[in-house]
Amino acid sequence: MNHPSTEHELISELKSLLQIHSPRYEIEIGDDAAVRRGNNSDQIILTTDLCVQDVHFKTEWMTFREIGYKAMVTNLSDCASMGASPESALIQLVFPKNDPALLEHIIQLYQGFNDACARWDFPVIGGDLSCGNSWIIGITLLGHVPSHSRTLRRSGAQAGDCLWVSGETGKSLAGLHCLQKWGRKHTPDKFKSFVDSHVRPEPQIGLGIALRENVAIHAMMDLSDGIAKDARTIGYENGLGVILKFDSSHISPLMIELGEILDSNPFEWVIQGGEEYELLFASSDSFNPGSVPGDTARRCKCIGTFTKERKGLWYHDGYSLTEVHTKGWNHL
Amino acid sequence: MNHPSTEHELISELKSLLQIHSPRYEIEIGDDAAVRRGNNSDQIILTTDLCVQDVHFKTEWMTFREIGYKAMVTNLSDCASMGASPESALIQLVFPKNDPALLEHIIQLYQGFNDACARWDFPVIGGDLSCGNSWIIGITLLGHVPSHSRTLRRSGAQAGDCLWVSGETGKSLAGLHCLQKWGRKHTPDKFKSFVDSHVRPEPQIGLGIALRENVAIHAMMDLSDGIAKDARTIGYENGLGVILKFDSSHISPLMIELGEILDSNPFEWVIQGGEEYELLFASSDSFNPGSVPGDTARRCKCIGTFTKERKGLWYHDGYSLTEVHTKGWNHL
Repeated sequence: MNHPSTEHELISELKSLLQIHSPRYEIEIGDDAAVRRGNNSDQIILTTDLCVQDVHFKTEWMTFREIGYKAMVTNLSDCASMGASPESALIQLVFPKNDPALLEHIIQLYQGFNDACARWDFPVIGGDLSCGNSWIIGITLLGHVPSHSRTLRRSGAQAGDCLWVSGETGKSLAGLHCLQKWGRKHTPDKFKSFVDSHVRPEPQIGLGIALRENVAIHAMMDLSDGIAKDARTIGYENGLGVILKFDSSHISPLMIELGEILDSNPFEWVIQGGEEYELLFASSDSFNPGSVPGDTARRCKCIGTFTKERKGLWYHDGYSLTEVHTKGWNHL
Repeated sequence: MNHPSTEHELISELKSLLQIHSPRYEIEIGDDAAVRRGNNSDQIILTTDLCVQDVHFKTEWMTFREIGYKAMVTNLSDCASMGASPESALIQLVFPKNDPALLEHIIQLYQGFNDACARWDFPVIGGDLSCGNSWIIGITLLGHVPSHSRTLRRSGAQAGDCLWVSGETGKSLAGLHCLQKWGRKHTPDKFKSFVDSHVRPEPQIGLGIALRENVAIHAMMDLSDGIAKDARTIGYENGLGVILKFDSSHISPLMIELGEILDSNPFEWVIQGGEEYELLFASSDSFNPGSVPGDTARRCKCIGTFTKERKGLWYHDGYSLTEVHTKGWNHL
């Protein structure tokens, strides 16, 4: 089957069990979000993500307000990757009954949710609360694309297309390594920006909207599981392979310095690091980031090309091709 | 504040933290579902519910297929209570990594989801999977009400209205007591119908749609936490009190027999038992269940009246009024 991951394979199996389909939904399971077309041809996108204590976050390293904000960002990033504006959210919260500061922590989580809602101007319209063994946040987000425009999808990339990423990657994983080594309080000041990337990531909502209006863009997804896994996925969805080409400018001197201190390879962070919430997209040769309104597109870099000559993900170091394997997060 | 529960009180506090609202959503937090009005005036309703292992279900007593089906029914019942038809669902699943039959159980859960989807003809359009400490199912359901009609809400009941319930209650709690006493296998055959009510409840989708078309119906919610809590809630939402009046026909001889064996009061099951998924609704005097198309309305019983003379929930036994306190499920 050559699926990008065992998770991908399981989802395909579950999809085949679910036999009911509706013409109202142009995209059901399998993209970053579902797409519903209304009678007036406006599109609603729907996406849902789980944040589980000790799997996706640790309460020792982040405040509850930061955890709430980041849980919302995880969904906002899926919204960005379709080129949609966030419209509303529903929140499911499981809390551990034995937390002595339970109500305070619930309120801080909701302050974090509200920080994201206020920044991107959308309401929380519903939810559910239950006790359980640990903290779990499930968010369902609705986004909106007006009738004159389109949603961007994982499918649509063509052989010869360029693969772009919307900014520097590896920062979130570098920040996680700082937290593991030093904790929040004792991370050296010079590396605190990496911790910031991990605890308060930035979803690319504005850039996603700008890119949907550009006909040179063929396909898009967000970078939640790392380039190595997500670039392989976008290739797989289009029956193509991807050849990555990085130049040294993709790894900052500060990241190299941190890698030496932690005895880690920062190149691994850059291609394996998840939770970046940058956008990964395919474009024709004609795409020029300078022509996109706003500043964010200036940070975009072409990091590879799509090919029909081979499947899977490859790295070209200037001399030869090496196959890249996924170390990104896998639940199964 | 006189809220119907501490949970209700917490939700009010969380609502006040969430400061962004949107004119597109007629109802945000606080009813059984949110209501979104599209440009063409069709209404989409959105509801979300959590099912947590050992809080809402036990894997010892139900198959995974039954657990999946019932999780969907919990949401379908919220959809029914607005008078909507189910349109699509998103599923969030947390699974315990140490389950030796993990993949098999995930597939059985999805078979249960699909049983409900096939019966009411709606697709699963998305979801998310993560490992965690125990089984947790979070479902977000979308429903649809055509532009010529209306959604039914918790608000709208008037003093003098009759309070109706769509069928016999207490069966699900009676079934739970059978499971606690005898387990699934050793429950006596004559009481197995109570266990069936608990493990395979019936959402009142068809009745909900029929009632929305009847102008005598003023307000509606579903019975997920028991009459004692939910009737109090519908009164509270309308600034009214509720006076319950049951006749003996509301408790079946079989339930009385089970109550004697288990040394429990079946009247408590009837008014405190949750997870019934019957509808609770307010109507004017002119409502006649016989005029509603289909058979289900024949089972409806008037069990009380709304009053502005007193707040809270009261029981009239034919001689005097007694205040009824809530023992229904409370997470906090």
